[in-house]
Amino acid sequence: MIRKITSIQNKEIKWLLQLQEKSRNRRKEGVFVIEGQREIELALKGNYIPVQLYYLPEKIEFDKVLAYSKITDDPAAITELNQEVYEKLAYRSSTEGIIGVFKSKNHELDDLKLNSENPLVLIAEAPEKPGNIGALLRTADAAAVDAVIIANPKTDLYNPNIIRSSVGCVFTNQIATGSTTEIISYLKRQNVKIYTAALQASENYYDIDFTEASAIIVGTEATGLSDEWIENADRNIIIPMHGEIDSMNVSVAAGILIFEAKRQRITRA
Amino acid sequence: MIRKITSIQNKEIKWLLQLQEKSRNRRKEGVFVIEGQREIELALKGNYIPVQLYYLPEKIEFDKVLAYSKITDDPAAITELNQEVYEKLAYRSSTEGIIGVFKSKNHELDDLKLNSENPLVLIAEAPEKPGNIGALLRTADAAAVDAVIIANPKTDLYNPNIIRSSVGCVFTNQIATGSTTEIISYLKRQNVKIYTAALQASENYYDIDFTEASAIIVGTEATGLSDEWIENADRNIIIPMHGEIDSMNVSVAAGILIFEAKRQRITRA
Repeated sequence: MIRKITSIQNKEIKWLLQLQEKSRNRRKEGVFVIEGQREIELALKGNYIPVQLYYLPEKIEFDKVLAYSKITDDPAAITELNQEVYEKLAYRSSTEGIIGVFKSKNHELDDLKLNSENPLVLIAEAPEKPGNIGALLRTADAAAVDAVIIANPKTDLYNPNIIRSSVGCVFTNQIATGSTTEIISYLKRQNVKIYTAALQASENYYDIDFTEASAIIVGTEATGLSDEWIENADRNIIIPMHGEIDSMNVSVAAGILIFEAKRQRITRA
Repeated sequence: MIRKITSIQNKEIKWLLQLQEKSRNRRKEGVFVIEGQREIELALKGNYIPVQLYYLPEKIEFDKVLAYSKITDDPAAITELNQEVYEKLAYRSSTEGIIGVFKSKNHELDDLKLNSENPLVLIAEAPEKPGNIGALLRTADAAAVDAVIIANPKTDLYNPNIIRSSVGCVFTNQIATGSTTEIISYLKRQNVKIYTAALQASENYYDIDFTEASAIIVGTEATGLSDEWIENADRNIIIPMHGEIDSMNVSVAAGILIFEAKRQRITRA
């Protein structure tokens, strides 16, 4: 018998809503919520472990949910929802039919595995908008960078807006978080060159040799990178601006830099 | 004596709110609303003509507003607002202190001036999200492309969300709109090569010579470009995707393509 929840007053529903809303609850309990088949499949592929799966039978087959639940020896509990309860929980109305609670991962710098000889790492310092973080993670996935590192994060990675705007790329990238000091020390230990994107820089990004082990660091649009990054950089680089304004969307800037690195690595290989 | 409006019930305030909300009203009246000093300065620089200026004296000096108003021989009317009325109209609470009503421009293809010998043009087909259009316009400004063309637009350019997310770059770019058929015919008449970004394409973008007269065309994330574009392209090009997902944020993709063209034009000059 599959358990059913048919009332939005149910305590478990309230728990789920809190888990979606509050980073504090996610941290305390070590779990978070994923909505959507595509996102859940990317999470499973990224070895995230489901503990609860809630589904709307009108929208997704039970066998599919069962397969998701059996990803480890300790299967996730499955609960059926009705339309009203599902819609209370879901952001995208009822197009997907599944919501899961998954175990958080640690995102320690020392757990990162930089597999290639000349790793390419994307780092964002204190990014604020979940939409920008999502776009950065999509770019990182598209370029298959070795790792993404968030310096001095302002939010946890499992913010539903990050998961959603990353279209699940929060699960396909190796991600670590840490303070700027810790990350700089990590990169130096790993012999990864530090290239900071700065509006005051004088060196054009396309004049840099990104074929060596490289980290590309971007700051926020409002304040740029901290002095600590600029001072510890191997090179401060700039995307030359030819127009009236002096700033770029941070995810567009990161895309330009990361894909220039990829281009060099492919065409000079 | 400067006219004052102190009630949010004032008919002119209602007219302004409608102008912000409804593309139909903007089209019918040939005017639109701009909020913020930076945006208004960029609009004036782009030869947009103000007809009304509303200001909050606590936030901006009258002399500044007066200077804005006198940009043509037919000065814009100036009206003082109080805090309550200003906040009713403004999106960004009271950080800027000025709102203007400006005359719309025509955005006809035949009015475009492609000044350089080998123009670079950015084209987006039916972009949906104002935020994406804004980011495209910022990229176009940063790269100083010759023109931006919106094919089969879904919204007018003077949507407040476009103005805001473009940080005023809707005024710094030469922009035209038209149907895909009209634009293709225009590009062919001007001998501008058509490079369509397509996920099914086989040619990597960095293998293209963008130093000739080039138009880069991007579609929507959901549906890509229409067949008409693909069939009329000189080359269908792809940003190679190395990760789990098969799509990119459209403004990131446009940034990568446009800046590769710029890089080639600068380094091969």
